[in-house]
Amino acid sequence: MAEWHQTHGRHILLDVWGADADTLNDLGSIQEAMLGAAAAAGATVVDATFHRFPCQGLSGVVVLAESHISVHTFPEHGYAAFDVFTCGSRVDPERACEHLVRAVGGDERFVRRFTRGARDGLTELDEPSAARALVP
Amino acid sequence: MAEWHQTHGRHILLDVWGADADTLNDLGSIQEAMLGAAAAAGATVVDATFHRFPCQGLSGVVVLAESHISVHTFPEHGYAAFDVFTCGSRVDPERACEHLVRAVGGDERFVRRFTRGARDGLTELDEPSAARALVP
Repeated sequence: MAEWHQTHGRHILLDVWGADADTLNDLGSIQEAMLGAAAAAGATVVDATFHRFPCQGLSGVVVLAESHISVHTFPEHGYAAFDVFTCGSRVDPERACEHLVRAVGGDERFVRRFTRGARDGLTELDEPSAARALVP
Repeated sequence: MAEWHQTHGRHILLDVWGADADTLNDLGSIQEAMLGAAAAAGATVVDATFHRFPCQGLSGVVVLAESHISVHTFPEHGYAAFDVFTCGSRVDPERACEHLVRAVGGDERFVRRFTRGARDGLTELDEPSAARALVP
């Protein structure tokens, strides 16, 4: 059974504040950050799509063989909302988050970690009440 | 300021078990469910990408002007992991979830709701420890 047939996944919600507005508004920088994050996790990229919104702000998704990484940026607020969701045990979503934090900077980072694909919905890996700083 | 410039967002992790394997493996059904969910939420679709994996299982992402809806299916386990993330107050992610549940069925649904884009990381809207059944 291939790795991606296992339902167990790890999902990290990473909210970054105080990031550089120019970086958050630059399509090339965000693409590079997202694809670099996939590589850092050891994931296989299936597709990637990025969009710039009319005034400012970007959205991007990298579809992985192991789930996805997404971003929505709000340059005027220095804010970016990342999701790193990986199934299986071979890839490491923490490495992806570290890469993203290095790429966009910011002085406040909130991380919430969850298990997906566990039939009881939550496991001991969850830290549902933890919104703690990620030290890059 | 346009709606999608506000950082406040609602993010729902929806895990469904016991769903019909054929539905979870059918690209057309999943595309229809996902685009229908976006419409049910009142969201604006910017892009959509869907992939079938070699053996079985699908991944799909609908990029919205208001963030995204994603799915990863594991037909052999009757399991699907949905994310519905919407920024702003105009769209309703709960309606999207209701649509998805109706579309794929399943007898166990676990829902976790989170706020994104709040500088303190968590607000009273969060139900971080709640993995409760969604009644469609």
